[in-house]
Amino acid sequence: MNFERNNIRQMAGYASGEQPDDELTIKLNTNENPYPPSPQVNEVLNQFNPASLRRYPPATALTFRRLAAELHGLDPENVIATRGGDELLRLVITTFVDPGEKIGMTDPTYSLYPVLAQIQDCPIVEVPLLDDWTLPGEFARSMNDAKVKLTFLVNPHAPTGALLPIDLVSKLASKLDSILLLDEAYIDFVDHDYQTSHLVKQHDNLVILRTLSKGYSLAGLRFGYGLANHSLIEPMLSKTRDSYNLDLISQLIAEAAISDQGYASGNWVKVITERARLKDQFHALGLLCNNSQANFLLVTIPDSVNCSAADLYKNLKERHILVRYFNTERLDDKLRISIGTRAENDQLLSTLGELLNPS
Amino acid sequence: MNFERNNIRQMAGYASGEQPDDELTIKLNTNENPYPPSPQVNEVLNQFNPASLRRYPPATALTFRRLAAELHGLDPENVIATRGGDELLRLVITTFVDPGEKIGMTDPTYSLYPVLAQIQDCPIVEVPLLDDWTLPGEFARSMNDAKVKLTFLVNPHAPTGALLPIDLVSKLASKLDSILLLDEAYIDFVDHDYQTSHLVKQHDNLVILRTLSKGYSLAGLRFGYGLANHSLIEPMLSKTRDSYNLDLISQLIAEAAISDQGYASGNWVKVITERARLKDQFHALGLLCNNSQANFLLVTIPDSVNCSAADLYKNLKERHILVRYFNTERLDDKLRISIGTRAENDQLLSTLGELLNPS
Repeated sequence: MNFERNNIRQMAGYASGEQPDDELTIKLNTNENPYPPSPQVNEVLNQFNPASLRRYPPATALTFRRLAAELHGLDPENVIATRGGDELLRLVITTFVDPGEKIGMTDPTYSLYPVLAQIQDCPIVEVPLLDDWTLPGEFARSMNDAKVKLTFLVNPHAPTGALLPIDLVSKLASKLDSILLLDEAYIDFVDHDYQTSHLVKQHDNLVILRTLSKGYSLAGLRFGYGLANHSLIEPMLSKTRDSYNLDLISQLIAEAAISDQGYASGNWVKVITERARLKDQFHALGLLCNNSQANFLLVTIPDSVNCSAADLYKNLKERHILVRYFNTERLDDKLRISIGTRAENDQLLSTLGELLNPS
Repeated sequence: MNFERNNIRQMAGYASGEQPDDELTIKLNTNENPYPPSPQVNEVLNQFNPASLRRYPPATALTFRRLAAELHGLDPENVIATRGGDELLRLVITTFVDPGEKIGMTDPTYSLYPVLAQIQDCPIVEVPLLDDWTLPGEFARSMNDAKVKLTFLVNPHAPTGALLPIDLVSKLASKLDSILLLDEAYIDFVDHDYQTSHLVKQHDNLVILRTLSKGYSLAGLRFGYGLANHSLIEPMLSKTRDSYNLDLISQLIAEAAISDQGYASGNWVKVITERARLKDQFHALGLLCNNSQANFLLVTIPDSVNCSAADLYKNLKERHILVRYFNTERLDDKLRISIGTRAENDQLLSTLGELLNPS
């Protein structure tokens, strides 16, 4: 007997990027940070007393929330700590969107959003991005006209790396009748001063998502957080969140990592520098890419190159370099390539050179 | 503006037990294991390479699932690993129960169940336990008549510690028209051989919940798992679970802990021995308690004792001993007391002696 709900039976799950467990592969397919986390993380592990695991962890990660609040010029009541950004996305839906109500997003966008909408049995309203990957001017009106209850925007955008101007974020929050979830998973890799957290004081419908996965090299830890007006944080914190959603070790590691801004930002600069170099080199190889403010580049394989994006993905994989290929309209002539270490990027460039310009 | 869904606005969150962070308090209120986790957990932490955190963790915890499957004589496809038992409870609802459909449980039961039902906007069907805390004979029929889609049973029962006979579990699974979630959070403390995992081969509607929080002294880790027919596991594993729900360190620690059955079962024996001693000593003090197969005792404060349960709770707390008091019908003359170490239990007994028989 199949006990699944109808909406669950009809959906497919989220397809995450390949995770090979060999050491040989250069892994540029899931936007992981190429550098290890802060040495302070090692300290936490060295000093950790395993006996403390027998007790329940701090239920709401208050110490971490205090640190995050301080970092962003907010109060702890404006912060919720979550098991990766993914838990925050789910909580926003569970708390604020009834089944049958609509969830808005751009096309393309982070492919987890539609999956989470389907789990809650919510129809999706998709607005295509313009040819240059910017938002159409009528975006907020389209969402309001469709009576959307929650809008997801990833900024910098995935998979293009395009960044919204801050005043546009503020205008969108003002114009939207409902909640705006601004997914800042990649925000740490913006190459100029760019701060949005003050906007949650101005807009009671804005939730900003942050994660330690990319900027703090902690994808394996599953730790993120949300910033918002207390009226949005409170029901997620006290009602819909799994009680004890964050284990003790994760909390301690996250506290150490977010406190070591100097180390993290040093890595951001390295990624930004390599991103600029890679972009130039891709152009030199006859490939195209837009400006990206994320830790990846969306690379177009033009017709002039005697190899499709799909084939290039396969050829790179055969040579132990993994990148991301999306077999969907508007993206099927492109590859999304995460920024690796300088050595990894050199290997990528020389392999691309061999594949695209065989002697 | 209040953006909460109606059902969320109307509900209260789960109230977890107090978690004082002082070292002085003897904490017998949240059923934590009084002994530290396996020394193998220390080994995992000592050998852990923090650099590995920069990558995403194994998405479905396959190594842990293989170990759990082996332990229970099942296949990995019969196992889902979850962030504590709580995540499994949520996933069973999300995957199999539409909003508006009914969720069944006993009264009393684990107080998280009604909270999770409210989040999914599901009405609750409660069947009162008999005076001796056993299930009424018509329990399954009551659930079927009410068209319940999911029934929660905690076994051993919380907060009474009563254990269902295995053949009754099997009969209930056969009789119920829908899914039976058997919550075995406390199963490791049963004082005789008691195995139910083979039942998932016979009943395609049975989900067994296990957790490492109690039996393996890892409440701080947030790690549990579910055992069921593949048709029930698969949609939770591939569709409704948060992608990467378990961080890397937790997976490694859980693998080590579940592999060290000798260490864990040694602690179970200690708890069982202390439980028997405490029960006798409570009787000697004029208090009453049933047989419990869990790591706690539900202690009735009879009228003959010149102190109410509520007052006794307060008086113990003033003396730095925390126990659990439920201010609800049928439980308000009782205290639920977790089994501590021998030294903690001695302190509890001597303090109770002073409070109940002041000289």
